[in-house]
Amino acid sequence: MNYRERYNEYAEEFNGVLKEFCNNLDCRPEILADSLRYSLELGGKRIRPVLTYSVGDLLGVERKKLSNFALAIELIHTYSLIHDDLPEMDNDDFRRGKPSNHKVFGAGNAVLAGDGLLNTAYSLLFKECVKGAEYISAASFICDCAGIYGMIAGQSADLLHEKDTSYNEPTLNFIYENKTAKLITAPVAVPSILCGGKHFAELKAFGRDLGCLFQVTDDILDVEGSFESLGKSIGKDGKEGKYTSVNLRGLDGSKLMADVLAERCRGILEGIGGGNEFLLNLVDDVRNRKA
Amino acid sequence: MNYRERYNEYAEEFNGVLKEFCNNLDCRPEILADSLRYSLELGGKRIRPVLTYSVGDLLGVERKKLSNFALAIELIHTYSLIHDDLPEMDNDDFRRGKPSNHKVFGAGNAVLAGDGLLNTAYSLLFKECVKGAEYISAASFICDCAGIYGMIAGQSADLLHEKDTSYNEPTLNFIYENKTAKLITAPVAVPSILCGGKHFAELKAFGRDLGCLFQVTDDILDVEGSFESLGKSIGKDGKEGKYTSVNLRGLDGSKLMADVLAERCRGILEGIGGGNEFLLNLVDDVRNRKA
Repeated sequence: MNYRERYNEYAEEFNGVLKEFCNNLDCRPEILADSLRYSLELGGKRIRPVLTYSVGDLLGVERKKLSNFALAIELIHTYSLIHDDLPEMDNDDFRRGKPSNHKVFGAGNAVLAGDGLLNTAYSLLFKECVKGAEYISAASFICDCAGIYGMIAGQSADLLHEKDTSYNEPTLNFIYENKTAKLITAPVAVPSILCGGKHFAELKAFGRDLGCLFQVTDDILDVEGSFESLGKSIGKDGKEGKYTSVNLRGLDGSKLMADVLAERCRGILEGIGGGNEFLLNLVDDVRNRKA
Repeated sequence: MNYRERYNEYAEEFNGVLKEFCNNLDCRPEILADSLRYSLELGGKRIRPVLTYSVGDLLGVERKKLSNFALAIELIHTYSLIHDDLPEMDNDDFRRGKPSNHKVFGAGNAVLAGDGLLNTAYSLLFKECVKGAEYISAASFICDCAGIYGMIAGQSADLLHEKDTSYNEPTLNFIYENKTAKLITAPVAVPSILCGGKHFAELKAFGRDLGCLFQVTDDILDVEGSFESLGKSIGKDGKEGKYTSVNLRGLDGSKLMADVLAERCRGILEGIGGGNEFLLNLVDDVRNRKA
């Protein structure tokens, strides 16, 4: 099986888990369940669950241990997109080629949909905690990654510097490492935590670099991509004077930075060894992605 | 010590815990930490921690077991107020006599402040989970109360019926039992869960009735109270055709309902017995509150 087939297999396996979760949602009123399902079923690359499953395979962690963690992380990711798209935040009308949650359900319901997904992620994880100390540890790690010393700090800094054009490296790194990379580190580190911390430090570093790479290529695509391939508004981040790699380093500087980050990711994976071919291909895939 | 002195003692003890939490917050950027502290330190009655501490005393649960649970619930309560006050939700400019979070920090930061408080509540609770099965159970119970089958369901129904003037009892009860009573049930039930479920069913019923009583007296105060005593806009809920007890049952009907709920609360407490005098007084206090 080649890389692409394997990626799709992981993603499809996760989509099955997600589908079951969506089918079992029976909260009232109906608009609440509908708004949760709408954003969860918009699709997307599912890179976070793919990372959890593939790192799990590398470390030999059983799939059934991982699936609720992968689900919880995807719920957290989806909540962050819904709140990020709100008019008072990034004000994006499109997500994955379809109208954003607040364009369909209104901003009030979108606030609640985001809150609901975040809370449901932790409801799932508290139920995992009864299985043992390593489950508690993994759940706690995810929660910290998503929180005020993690993703939310990055979002807050991003919002603060929205109209700030005096770009500097430390601020950009703070935003990228928190806003994007923390929720890439979580799915990468969870399988390690669940098997007693095998390669934990390396995988944490891998998650950080891969997350930053993901964000830098996002910035490049914001300049070079198209609405058709990305399914969201393009040319928006740069124009509004946001903190982006392209605004700080230019397009060529950003491509160079992406190469450096990809090389660091490969170096870490080679250090870990084992059946790491899929993850090595995934690094190239993120580096060269067109969507 | 009389009822009022004891209430204040519980509240002050909790305010010490909260103060320490606020002092130790050192997330970046500063506006994030400031916006969290602002809403946490606006004051308020602190009825939820007072309930946790006093039910804990009734059941003989050590205070040190309770304080992070009380803190987490107050964080969740505060997040719900911040999001509830947003322009797209209840659009309230005042809370506890001061400008709402979004009036001070802007709506984008208020969304993040709410997200941050919710996430931090669970970060605290995951750290409690390592202490044993009853801690996991209590944390999970709180999370479910706050979630899409609890508080968020109630908020969603409240928003859905915002302009609906065909009031009916089942919808009102659904909103009250979820939006308000679930996050009164959590602080009442937690001490029971932490000591192996002593009087759990009775305390759950007590929390539901007390929460509904609290909401009915809120509706009465919205008609009869003043901005000065309440610190928030009054006459707003009724006017906008919202689902309130007064709109459904009238003012006299609501007072009668409040008497019925208070009587049910007293009945449950008498069934439990023990040193329940403080809680009996608290029921009267909620029934007759002017703020």
